[in-house]
Amino acid sequence: MLNIGIIGAGRIGKVHTQSIVNFVRGAKVTAIADPFITPETSDWAHSLGIEAISKDYHSILHDSSIDAVLICSSTDTHSPISLEAIAAGKHIFCEKPIDHDIGRIREVLAALKSPVGQNLKYMVGFNRRFDHNFRAVRSAVVNGSVGKVELVKVTSRDPEPPSAEYAARSGGIFLDMTIHDFDMVRYLSGEEVEEVFVHPAVLVDPAIGAAGDVDSAVISLKLRSGALAVIDNCRRCAYGYDQRAEVFGSLGASLCGNDANSNAQVWSGSGATGEKPLFFFLERYMQAYATEVTEFIAAVENNTPVPVTAEDGLQAVRIGIAATKSSKEGRPVKLSEIAG
Amino acid sequence: MLNIGIIGAGRIGKVHTQSIVNFVRGAKVTAIADPFITPETSDWAHSLGIEAISKDYHSILHDSSIDAVLICSSTDTHSPISLEAIAAGKHIFCEKPIDHDIGRIREVLAALKSPVGQNLKYMVGFNRRFDHNFRAVRSAVVNGSVGKVELVKVTSRDPEPPSAEYAARSGGIFLDMTIHDFDMVRYLSGEEVEEVFVHPAVLVDPAIGAAGDVDSAVISLKLRSGALAVIDNCRRCAYGYDQRAEVFGSLGASLCGNDANSNAQVWSGSGATGEKPLFFFLERYMQAYATEVTEFIAAVENNTPVPVTAEDGLQAVRIGIAATKSSKEGRPVKLSEIAG
Amino acid sequence: MLNIGIIGAGRIGKVHTQSIVNFVRGAKVTAIADPFITPETSDWAHSLGIEAISKDYHSILHDSSIDAVLICSSTDTHSPISLEAIAAGKHIFCEKPIDHDIGRIREVLAALKSPVGQNLKYMVGFNRRFDHNFRAVRSAVVNGSVGKVELVKVTSRDPEPPSAEYAARSGGIFLDMTIHDFDMVRYLSGEEVEEVFVHPAVLVDPAIGAAGDVDSAVISLKLRSGALAVIDNCRRCAYGYDQRAEVFGSLGASLCGNDANSNAQVWSGSGATGEKPLFFFLERYMQAYATEVTEFIAAVENNTPVPVTAEDGLQAVRIGIAATKSSKEGRPVKLSEIAG
Amino acid sequence: MLNIGIIGAGRIGKVHTQSIVNFVRGAKVTAIADPFITPETSDWAHSLGIEAISKDYHSILHDSSIDAVLICSSTDTHSPISLEAIAAGKHIFCEKPIDHDIGRIREVLAALKSPVGQNLKYMVGFNRRFDHNFRAVRSAVVNGSVGKVELVKVTSRDPEPPSAEYAARSGGIFLDMTIHDFDMVRYLSGEEVEEVFVHPAVLVDPAIGAAGDVDSAVISLKLRSGALAVIDNCRRCAYGYDQRAEVFGSLGASLCGNDANSNAQVWSGSGATGEKPLFFFLERYMQAYATEVTEFIAAVENNTPVPVTAEDGLQAVRIGIAATKSSKEGRPVKLSEIAG
Repeated sequence: MLNIGIIGAGRIGKVHTQSIVNFVRGAKVTAIADPFITPETSDWAHSLGIEAISKDYHSILHDSSIDAVLICSSTDTHSPISLEAIAAGKHIFCEKPIDHDIGRIREVLAALKSPVGQNLKYMVGFNRRFDHNFRAVRSAVVNGSVGKVELVKVTSRDPEPPSAEYAARSGGIFLDMTIHDFDMVRYLSGEEVEEVFVHPAVLVDPAIGAAGDVDSAVISLKLRSGALAVIDNCRRCAYGYDQRAEVFGSLGASLCGNDANSNAQVWSGSGATGEKPLFFFLERYMQAYATEVTEFIAAVENNTPVPVTAEDGLQAVRIGIAATKSSKEGRPVKLSEIAG
Repeated sequence: MLNIGIIGAGRIGKVHTQSIVNFVRGAKVTAIADPFITPETSDWAHSLGIEAISKDYHSILHDSSIDAVLICSSTDTHSPISLEAIAAGKHIFCEKPIDHDIGRIREVLAALKSPVGQNLKYMVGFNRRFDHNFRAVRSAVVNGSVGKVELVKVTSRDPEPPSAEYAARSGGIFLDMTIHDFDMVRYLSGEEVEEVFVHPAVLVDPAIGAAGDVDSAVISLKLRSGALAVIDNCRRCAYGYDQRAEVFGSLGASLCGNDANSNAQVWSGSGATGEKPLFFFLERYMQAYATEVTEFIAAVENNTPVPVTAEDGLQAVRIGIAATKSSKEGRPVKLSEIAG
Repeated sequence: MLNIGIIGAGRIGKVHTQSIVNFVRGAKVTAIADPFITPETSDWAHSLGIEAISKDYHSILHDSSIDAVLICSSTDTHSPISLEAIAAGKHIFCEKPIDHDIGRIREVLAALKSPVGQNLKYMVGFNRRFDHNFRAVRSAVVNGSVGKVELVKVTSRDPEPPSAEYAARSGGIFLDMTIHDFDMVRYLSGEEVEEVFVHPAVLVDPAIGAAGDVDSAVISLKLRSGALAVIDNCRRCAYGYDQRAEVFGSLGASLCGNDANSNAQVWSGSGATGEKPLFFFLERYMQAYATEVTEFIAAVENNTPVPVTAEDGLQAVRIGIAATKSSKEGRPVKLSEIAG
Repeated sequence: MLNIGIIGAGRIGKVHTQSIVNFVRGAKVTAIADPFITPETSDWAHSLGIEAISKDYHSILHDSSIDAVLICSSTDTHSPISLEAIAAGKHIFCEKPIDHDIGRIREVLAALKSPVGQNLKYMVGFNRRFDHNFRAVRSAVVNGSVGKVELVKVTSRDPEPPSAEYAARSGGIFLDMTIHDFDMVRYLSGEEVEEVFVHPAVLVDPAIGAAGDVDSAVISLKLRSGALAVIDNCRRCAYGYDQRAEVFGSLGASLCGNDANSNAQVWSGSGATGEKPLFFFLERYMQAYATEVTEFIAAVENNTPVPVTAEDGLQAVRIGIAATKSSKEGRPVKLSEIAG
């Protein structure tokens, strides 16, 4: 029986906690820590049988009965808490991104090579790799149905834009939103990115532009093998969360679409109408969140490799930084320009 | 070069004429006859290079330069003109049904066994057998993908009901409308029908009921092998002409849907909307009409079997008569009750 | 906090238990009883925090701390346990069918009108009413998109046939399998059935025929308003569990298809291939099982009507008996022939 | 009655001739010219009633009975023949591109402003604008369903690569193949292109690379309004001709897919399989070819604007030249760099 501590009891911390309680045999959430924990959250935690509730995550790191932690706190705390948790000998599941700063991600990677660190599992929360649709597309690549990969296309549009304040603090769209899509390109192709070119645009909210960010972009990528990839992003999508991918290769293509609440259609004089996609990430990726945590715990229990490594976390951030540079400088940027 | 005479210059006569002009190399429409021919139709025929235009089809039958006739006149004239045309040594394409009376169909079959008749091609116009979608379903049956056929389902709904006057003269829904679906069951299954049960209903227009007909029905059929079939009909369908089929068997199923003007979709806050099906038979089956005439002419030219025989015409009418009987008597009716 | 006792710890008993543990706040499974309970099942129950484990369901009925029971035992025990549980003042969720014998169902209905019974909730487990797809189709009927209902079509095919032994004990396909589809017709149309006609067939396994049952059928129904319905059943389906429905009405149609593990497709030289449907009821209806139990518990907690009543349970069995009679006698059977 | 002369009796010249013969009332092909005309082609032309067959297109230009010409000859002859035909006072339908050289296109535009030229219709053969699917997508833009356009995505993949020899002579993929997609971006968005960036690749045939061309590319475009567009191209596609588009805007999206020979599916133990797309342009765009010629002739007859102008022809070539430059120089290229 594995004991788990949850660091950060916001939305995603709660989702993971609930997944472990509901679906993961052999693991138990025994502690939760959040500096801003509310009485409601405490009650909720108690109702799930979690007894150790704290404002300070150090209580979790110091608790020798705890085997693994899930770092679900704010982005800027991911790498420092990771370092402390490694030092404390905890296995770690860290929400993406590890950090916006490559140097600090490097510190985490270094710590994982330390005598303590090298016995620990460290997994990054790129949840979309665990989505049933994207997994099926990846499967078709792995089993050879697609042949040699030549092009990966990722559509990723959020239903509603964040506030300009959020955008200003977010690290920019490429590190905040597209980072998932960069990981998806690496996941679906099984390849590293070599060059990025961005056509950015502010089409949704001028305030986002005023805050120094953009809200729409087409990102074109060259992969190491010479294959290509392209991502289109928008911070607002009238029909809901648009999350699709397509891999094209020498033998064919594999592609997936959105999920809706049902596949029912109404046929009438005005056409054939089906439901729009599920609203946003909590709706679309609920199954993926449960699967990723389940697989993290299985990797710890069985001492097998984690499905998303710290290196994966590093590469996605590097591409994000290159994309940000391309967006600002209006030219293609090679990954080799970004210290790795 | 085959010379063709068209008997009946109504809607379907014109469709076939146009198909031959546009698509059939090696055949030429040289004559057209219709007792009610209008000046507009004459002009139209002239513009296509048809010179012999007449009110009396006998002029076509007596024209020794004409090899084949298409009988597109009113239903009650199909069998008498067929008999005359056989006597005149013409190959015949006859619109469905040959006749509503089994005895008169039998006369046509007998004439086709006469010394003159046995050298003639006689094809019945069950156009849906030539539709690209239904052909693909049939193909999957023939190539074994479906395995042993166990169930055929046919959905057949017209966009708009006929007038009650038409219904009264039509021979009833089962001989007028369902007859196509009976042929479809035979075509898709490759089997003969053994028993029919009908649940009839008047749901669209009470005047159709008052005229002694029904406007909706579910027709359940037992085939000779023990396999089953079911047809659902309605004389009115708000979203257009609904023409679908499904064949289910030991190894799987093959099924087809409707055609629309385009496959474009609009995705918006109110869902994902595609176009409704093509409006009615002239839209949906334009390709099928051209193909059936092309195949008739090819059968004449190459002296090969026609794809829809007079026997096919007979069997569909027999099933229609059995269905009418079942509808009126509220019991399953065996085909053996209907003289064949 | 509602305390729940589970009677019958087979497959479906376990599914419901797990659903309550995972998804239902405000209810707790505190006891479980099964005459053939295995050590593995006991361990599983303990791991979920269920302490009262017994071979005799009377211990549950006698436990005054238990508010509601789920009857998941073998079909022949449903009605006697229902009667005992009503007498014991427990709210009841009973798996379908209540009984194969109308008289015994009547006894349950009578008990529910007794002084004790009339304060109790009694719900029948027609899980498909809670499936996201069928609910969306029903929604389109209720919100008027379909107009006046004229035809309900239900496709229901199991992936693999039961053994002939099972078939012999099952009450026959119409009470064992089609009963769900009869309920679906009533649910989607909101109407009562007036007449049933069956075309039965043994196409899958002759041993099922030898056991006095059939394995395939088309069932045609007339509803009280004059609307029609048709169900097609097969005990074996090569591509998995086929569960679809279509409601056709004066303004259009609403229809739903199967669910698959993903919507991914592979496009290659041999066509465009998507996944087959989810295998069987445990895969397809997992969400429906959780929703139905959640709604049962909500009805108990809030003292609101249950979504599937004992009367619903009765009517589905009546139609099943009428269908069995039609199948055996080869004629349409009116519901009025079956004592209600 | 309009008399038409066909210049160039290759594949596309024949397609247009046939379309006029079959579908266009009020126009007649009276002459055809091709320097390499074969006896078979002459026979075919005679069989369609075309009497003036020549090796020299000047006979068409000098024939005062001819009102309009279709220029279907090799690309390098399009602009010189256009100039001569304008001088001869013929209305002109010219296959794309007018020329690979902007200066020579400018000469054609100038000639169209001459006293003779300004009374002539000049239409460029961007056939895809007339495809039912792309038209329906454009319709949704025009009728406001999509809102303000923010992104256009065009997928365009040919089933089979041309020979390296062809590639060497073709002007390069961007002027030979992508030119259609550049026009599609302008058509669907209703906007001009401002900047182009290309990620080119040789993934299909190294000989194409050796010939100085590429066979795969992602092309990212910025439009004048700030909206974005992206095209993906490949010269080889295992599942056939892949021609899809998507327009995304403030209120939603409109998108279209490929056409297949039928919509039939086979459902089996290995999944649900539909047909692959129609093979290539002659299959997919047969309807579009007929419609474009019909609309050209209608514009001449009614003296209304042509749906694709010489200016449209110019702009597509300019974008193609900019894309070629971007591909070679590895940087975004502004349209303003290319003399217009």
